[in-house]
Amino acid sequence: MNTETIVSALNAVRQQKPLVVNITNYVVMNNTANALLALGASPIMAHSREEMAEMMSFAGALVVNIGTLDSSWTPRMAYAVEQANRHGKPVVLDPVGCGASTLRTQTSRQIAQAAAQLIIRGNASEIIALAGEAGQSKGVDALDSSEAAVGTARHLAEVHGCNVVISGATDVVVTAEGEVRLRNGHAMMPSVTGMGCTLSALTGAFAAVGETTGLAAAAVLGVAGEIAAEQSAGPGSLQLNLLDALYQLDETTLRQRLKLA
Amino acid sequence: MNTETIVSALNAVRQQKPLVVNITNYVVMNNTANALLALGASPIMAHSREEMAEMMSFAGALVVNIGTLDSSWTPRMAYAVEQANRHGKPVVLDPVGCGASTLRTQTSRQIAQAAAQLIIRGNASEIIALAGEAGQSKGVDALDSSEAAVGTARHLAEVHGCNVVISGATDVVVTAEGEVRLRNGHAMMPSVTGMGCTLSALTGAFAAVGETTGLAAAAVLGVAGEIAAEQSAGPGSLQLNLLDALYQLDETTLRQRLKLA
Amino acid sequence: MNTETIVSALNAVRQQKPLVVNITNYVVMNNTANALLALGASPIMAHSREEMAEMMSFAGALVVNIGTLDSSWTPRMAYAVEQANRHGKPVVLDPVGCGASTLRTQTSRQIAQAAAQLIIRGNASEIIALAGEAGQSKGVDALDSSEAAVGTARHLAEVHGCNVVISGATDVVVTAEGEVRLRNGHAMMPSVTGMGCTLSALTGAFAAVGETTGLAAAAVLGVAGEIAAEQSAGPGSLQLNLLDALYQLDETTLRQRLKLA
Repeated sequence: MNTETIVSALNAVRQQKPLVVNITNYVVMNNTANALLALGASPIMAHSREEMAEMMSFAGALVVNIGTLDSSWTPRMAYAVEQANRHGKPVVLDPVGCGASTLRTQTSRQIAQAAAQLIIRGNASEIIALAGEAGQSKGVDALDSSEAAVGTARHLAEVHGCNVVISGATDVVVTAEGEVRLRNGHAMMPSVTGMGCTLSALTGAFAAVGETTGLAAAAVLGVAGEIAAEQSAGPGSLQLNLLDALYQLDETTLRQRLKLA
Repeated sequence: MNTETIVSALNAVRQQKPLVVNITNYVVMNNTANALLALGASPIMAHSREEMAEMMSFAGALVVNIGTLDSSWTPRMAYAVEQANRHGKPVVLDPVGCGASTLRTQTSRQIAQAAAQLIIRGNASEIIALAGEAGQSKGVDALDSSEAAVGTARHLAEVHGCNVVISGATDVVVTAEGEVRLRNGHAMMPSVTGMGCTLSALTGAFAAVGETTGLAAAAVLGVAGEIAAEQSAGPGSLQLNLLDALYQLDETTLRQRLKLA
Repeated sequence: MNTETIVSALNAVRQQKPLVVNITNYVVMNNTANALLALGASPIMAHSREEMAEMMSFAGALVVNIGTLDSSWTPRMAYAVEQANRHGKPVVLDPVGCGASTLRTQTSRQIAQAAAQLIIRGNASEIIALAGEAGQSKGVDALDSSEAAVGTARHLAEVHGCNVVISGATDVVVTAEGEVRLRNGHAMMPSVTGMGCTLSALTGAFAAVGETTGLAAAAVLGVAGEIAAEQSAGPGSLQLNLLDALYQLDETTLRQRLKLA
């Protein structure tokens, strides 16, 4: 997990144009599809049970996002994860609003339990809620909100054999090998809806080319986001400039801007 | 209902960042979430029955918008209103396309009937269709389309004990205390889809901090919209510049631009 | 099918502001509604069975797009087509992802079979998948991907008595009278999600005013797209500039830029 891994993962996405199947929320479908296209990947937004087995046979990864959860969608998410497992494809879980309702907490846990090759991407409070009491870390002296969830993320990583991306002012990537911190991004980014969902979608694109830690996605989105924010008068411009910045991002800029720790 | 009410309501939203639960249409979910964020509020787009009681217990307001109505959503809207009533939270009804189909007219009326603390936000024809024959005002010498619905809105306000915002070239806010007219906004705004839906969402944010007339939302959106339109070559730019203008709007500009009557 | 047909069709849309009913996918609902508004048409996104008969009685055209297909929507699409037929309204079919799953291929064929006044708009691979083995053209020396589907499109046009628009670097419009090729557009356009869906929506607007070949929509979108792309640093800007360009497009620019063959 270093600069070279990130750069070569970006090149791989652009060359291979992996197909990423997204079962995601209504709010961000357009944005995340556009972010995947701007990165160089191929998005499909699909949620029908009838086509999920076929889709997962040729897709590179599955992204499951519970942002606008519906009881009619939950079994389809479970079935899609089953098909991803069957075809050996990585699954990115975005537990949007986990902890805000029992439905979201339980559904997130079921998906995390079911996925064989799992990457979890959430903010600190979602990660903490996902783990529940068993995963509560004690006595952590949190430097910022992401730090408060690192112990919990480590617990999740061990229980599920997964990688975890805690996004926030500092993004923390937790894997079996350790932790990497990333200090890219911009304070205006949370004023655009679904920025975390975009990170989860990009995580799927990178997972499809073998970069399953989530770091490359966080790095590319953080760098593109800060370039975009520098040119933006507000969140409307930022949403648009982010797509342009993802589309234009080159190796040199990526290397220069990366703030790994 | 004057300039000071509007200014202090804007400050209250930015300080309290109220959570606004939206059961809204697919077309505008992204835009309205972004408009709420740009204003300083916290949007949740949720429609599951299983989580609505929890959501309404900590939300500040509920916005129900029937733009892409579906029979599977109608009972959930009714249940959400029931929960809003139970927790004493205001409900904003956006009766999109009321009058264009029997389904929309009937559903709008059921929601208006059910909500205890109701604000209705619609254009003149939707307001007139919502009231039906009983609310038809006679002999009105309409100056513009909003004026044509003022008598009807007054009828609705009395029947439901609610406030009504008629949006148009002139916005008219009808409450038990009387009427206020607002002449902000720009002729290009109706060329962006869901501009009325955005107004309804912002109305929810203001209602959550106690400004339940709808006037502050109409004022803020009207002023931000005209600032944005002055910088826009067309409706694509306008949609984006509107979010930037909402985000940047300051007290001085708001006071200077307001056209209350 | 020539420049004058296109120009007069654009004028007709702007004067008549036809109502276009769209049963479309979640990803593009906002964009396609905005593109229809920017063109001068009136969009309704509706999918309830309960209101479809009323809607089709006063609408100018129906657009059915299977981008995020769901088994609960398929019967509603069929019912909407039935109502369009009953009221003598044209139907535009966008067979998104036809060939990528059995569900999409079968659903596309059912809709194509059912519509009385049909226009099909897809890319080459969707058109070829829609026709299936029976429509496979042999020995075609394809100049580009659209050319590879021309024989198949001709077969579909004969079987269904419909017009077919094959979109790509070159758009090919296939009708009973022959073929027209259009070389407008820009290489960045496929990096915006749902550009084909936008073309299908605009095709509905033109069909509603009697231009049922699909050519005017392809021409207007191609010209607006290339104007927008010339001003865009990436796909984010392009999506926005396209709406502005559609809104501003005048006869002179349209005539000057058209590349018909």
